[in-house]
Amino acid sequence: MNGNPTLDTLMNRKSTRKYRPEMPERGVIDAILRAGQQAPFASQLYSVILSTKGKFAFGAPVSLVICVDAHRLRLFMKKRGWEIVTNNLTLLLLGIQDAAYMAQNLVVAAESLGLGSCFLGESSMSAERVRHLAKKHHLPELVLPLVELVLGYPAEEATPRPRFPLSFTVFENTYPELGDEALEEAMAVMDSGYLAQDYYKKSKAKIRIEGDRKDEFTFDDYSWTEHISRKWGQWAASPNDLLEVLAERGFSLEKQ
Amino acid sequence: MNGNPTLDTLMNRKSTRKYRPEMPERGVIDAILRAGQQAPFASQLYSVILSTKGKFAFGAPVSLVICVDAHRLRLFMKKRGWEIVTNNLTLLLLGIQDAAYMAQNLVVAAESLGLGSCFLGESSMSAERVRHLAKKHHLPELVLPLVELVLGYPAEEATPRPRFPLSFTVFENTYPELGDEALEEAMAVMDSGYLAQDYYKKSKAKIRIEGDRKDEFTFDDYSWTEHISRKWGQWAASPNDLLEVLAERGFSLEKQ
Repeated sequence: MNGNPTLDTLMNRKSTRKYRPEMPERGVIDAILRAGQQAPFASQLYSVILSTKGKFAFGAPVSLVICVDAHRLRLFMKKRGWEIVTNNLTLLLLGIQDAAYMAQNLVVAAESLGLGSCFLGESSMSAERVRHLAKKHHLPELVLPLVELVLGYPAEEATPRPRFPLSFTVFENTYPELGDEALEEAMAVMDSGYLAQDYYKKSKAKIRIEGDRKDEFTFDDYSWTEHISRKWGQWAASPNDLLEVLAERGFSLEKQ
Repeated sequence: MNGNPTLDTLMNRKSTRKYRPEMPERGVIDAILRAGQQAPFASQLYSVILSTKGKFAFGAPVSLVICVDAHRLRLFMKKRGWEIVTNNLTLLLLGIQDAAYMAQNLVVAAESLGLGSCFLGESSMSAERVRHLAKKHHLPELVLPLVELVLGYPAEEATPRPRFPLSFTVFENTYPELGDEALEEAMAVMDSGYLAQDYYKKSKAKIRIEGDRKDEFTFDDYSWTEHISRKWGQWAASPNDLLEVLAERGFSLEKQ
């Protein structure tokens, strides 16, 4: 099978964590945003807050806060004599998809124009961060900041990061039993891949172990599966803060 | 600003709702899936069920059920001596993003290779559909079918659909008051755009009004904002079924 420039763009993409200070031309930013809009959608349930003044992560000159947005839906439904009847959970789950498809198009469009980007996903999902962004950008009810994407010209050369083997990700017809062999192979691909790039050693990104458990890893063997395990094994045990901030934004998820 | 083939691919993309029966080569399907994997992620919290035998929507020869998948996370964390502590809501909200970024890369990769695609988003989000797919594909706990993407070579020529004006979608620093003028302009762009393509007339996709309210629209004036209003103004009032099926899949969203 022959490749093409779009496939090359997709395959070469990696998060950029160091930026040159120069501001991309406005035409470049607008072309990226327009390409974002052409992603498929349920109801265009997203909006974007663009900031070009301020300090953003990794020295990036541009920040895009991608929001789930049902505020505009409510406004135009009112013009048509309708009110939103659909429950918040469905609205949120479809809204996140609309916003995420658009966001990924932004990533691809930016890459094709020589810009790097990085999602700030995990931090955006905290109640504190949601409140901060909602206040800073005057977000009305039914607008939820989902994820921040920073953009700019890269000041580092990075290589694409490894991924699970396709055989561990795509299953034909039936989800298989994943035995030890498949599991260990997939873990080895990720861990040896990140180690070969000295990824955690360079970024000094080791996550501290809380409590009494001893940290037996050095940067010679600390890699992706251990790093990810420490996140999901230690962080954000209670959903209550997030449920509360979702309700504040207009998306209460309680049973009715 | 100069365009490029990737931007052209993004700008030309539209959902395909009529397919030729021929099966894409396996190399083509795998190239699309690999490009999907290179999307950014929090923790690769997705998997894909590929089906090439059966009848799929719009006569498409290939179906991809894109799942949020924390089952593999749980398996490899166990190998490392960890358990998932993070709450289900955070897991789900980040998992949906991982899955959606990947899914949008699939869409773009397919388009670049001459294939069409269509998300079956709204139907996938029903409790009935989730249960059906979970059973059919033997999905373990912590695997949630999020959205189905059908793929194949198009048997129709379609033009990209309209989108809201950029000025109604991207806001600098502050979310503005959206006055009547901006709102009416945005509605007119969408409605006149769909009418110019005879979109609803051709697809006979008018949504019936429930209850006593009279339907005063014909296919000469029934368009996007009315169509979307009838969905969100009539469907899925209660979140309870969806909350229940999420809990069945391992993602209970109750307060703790």
